[in-house]
Amino acid sequence: MAAFEHKYDQNFTQHVIDTCGPKTSPRMKTIFSSLARHIHDFAREVDLTPEEWLAGVDFLNQTGKLWAESDGKRNEMHRLCDIVGLESLVTEIANYVQTEDPNYIPTSSAILGPFWSPNAPWRELGDSIIESPHDGYITYMHGIIRDLATQKPIPNVTFDIWQASSNGKYDFQDPENQVDNNLRGKFKTDENGEYRLYCLRPTAYSLPRDGPAWDILKALDRHSMRPAHIHLRITHDEYKPVITQIYPKDDPWLETDTVFAVKDDLVCDFKPLKSLPSNMPPHERHGGEAVRELELDITLAPKSMLQPLKEPITDRSA
Amino acid sequence: MAAFEHKYDQNFTQHVIDTCGPKTSPRMKTIFSSLARHIHDFAREVDLTPEEWLAGVDFLNQTGKLWAESDGKRNEMHRLCDIVGLESLVTEIANYVQTEDPNYIPTSSAILGPFWSPNAPWRELGDSIIESPHDGYITYMHGIIRDLATQKPIPNVTFDIWQASSNGKYDFQDPENQVDNNLRGKFKTDENGEYRLYCLRPTAYSLPRDGPAWDILKALDRHSMRPAHIHLRITHDEYKPVITQIYPKDDPWLETDTVFAVKDDLVCDFKPLKSLPSNMPPHERHGGEAVRELELDITLAPKSMLQPLKEPITDRSA
Repeated sequence: MAAFEHKYDQNFTQHVIDTCGPKTSPRMKTIFSSLARHIHDFAREVDLTPEEWLAGVDFLNQTGKLWAESDGKRNEMHRLCDIVGLESLVTEIANYVQTEDPNYIPTSSAILGPFWSPNAPWRELGDSIIESPHDGYITYMHGIIRDLATQKPIPNVTFDIWQASSNGKYDFQDPENQVDNNLRGKFKTDENGEYRLYCLRPTAYSLPRDGPAWDILKALDRHSMRPAHIHLRITHDEYKPVITQIYPKDDPWLETDTVFAVKDDLVCDFKPLKSLPSNMPPHERHGGEAVRELELDITLAPKSMLQPLKEPITDRSA
Repeated sequence: MAAFEHKYDQNFTQHVIDTCGPKTSPRMKTIFSSLARHIHDFAREVDLTPEEWLAGVDFLNQTGKLWAESDGKRNEMHRLCDIVGLESLVTEIANYVQTEDPNYIPTSSAILGPFWSPNAPWRELGDSIIESPHDGYITYMHGIIRDLATQKPIPNVTFDIWQASSNGKYDFQDPENQVDNNLRGKFKTDENGEYRLYCLRPTAYSLPRDGPAWDILKALDRHSMRPAHIHLRITHDEYKPVITQIYPKDDPWLETDTVFAVKDDLVCDFKPLKSLPSNMPPHERHGGEAVRELELDITLAPKSMLQPLKEPITDRSA
């Protein structure tokens, strides 16, 4: 990186930063300064040509055009950030919790993605979230949610779960085959901090292969696959939320997830189900349809361990 | 910058880069690797929040939407690059010519901007480019175009000039007051490498104050002014083209040009005109209307001094 330092005008970047006036908010100044330095260093490092820069301008314009033409439904700009790892990175940053013992950390977060619904129905412990036909493996999923500091179970945690069906589509994308809220549900942990429910062993799927994100993936000789995953959003007033995804350990796309959302502690073992607990009441047994079992404990950090929130950048409407 | 290095996953960025497949072109790999590193370092350096990142996604979507809704006429994405100095920087990079003596360099380049026209008329030496009424100072502009290596004058150079009128608008933007090709023209240097013509002393103007670029300028507490300038595009088959802008030395916006296109050697002295050359023929005197004089010599680098061209990134249609 030292090679370019003396080649081009050494004062240029600082000059751009120094044009910010005294009324810039400190956070805006911090963000703009860092962004300008990195964009300039990038351009100098690769000797970016005017044609390459203009190709980038055109590419971002075309990407915004797709969003405008779909009335905001298709957000390829968001997807571009995902395939370069940016959403995964800001998720890691937001969920960073400093602990003295590196083995003593909360369950990792992973990107929320575009398919969460605020309208998922409340369900009872032991219910199934499966409401429409599928070709998947029904899975008995259960576990304990614990406090990072005390390791004690936490009652009354909201456990919000959503997943694609065995055809790789969410209910939103597949109204012909799935009823609304198929494979979605919210549960509360019981007095022992336990949740239990039935879901599907998840299925891998591809990002859309007809837009700017796919153009970039092709140019990088990359695939468009996400590993099979189940989304979780685990919340309690006294704890830092965990928004995450879990993955079957034998999925072939774990290492190269096209949005880089896999973390080691989120890889799970969907085992063949030997038997349901002998004390399970009949209405939770669902006729013994389950063929897999996933036991997954979750650790939440108390809010007292949070990083301070950033001040807002600026009011853009001002 | 060292503070974040051990805070977040140290392998993440290299992992994102390593997903590029073997069929990525070397240039694409170079650009993607550098861009991913700088975007990630930026996010870690400022602890970018998910809300800030999403505000950025929305901002770029809105910017692309303006372009789509104007059928490509309003390119705010390009303008955003200008106000962070990126177009000026890629122009500097593209026009970098290494010479052993730092005082021995070609005339600096500056951004082309959106107002160049391929259809400007050819004019004769000594003609005026002024065709419509104005409130400006008519200027007799002349000079010699020289070879950087030999310092000899170059005959038959194309000298393409365009500028806004005294109201700060180009002919495209002002059809009520200006005829087509007002304040535009192409000239050829004579056997002594000389050009001469009449133009206006230029007038400062503001970028549009109703879009994303203005939103950013407000948030940075910056103004939207460009210093007064005249555009030049100087070409000859055997020389590296010089696309540039020149500025009157007493303009108040030179130091803080909102697109950062001012270079020291482009700042000129528009002097009061004492007299036109005594041997100038009557048809070049235009009734003695000129009140200012600008003498500006230009130096062109022979193409043998060029940097090698980059290979293309990729064929996006492939």
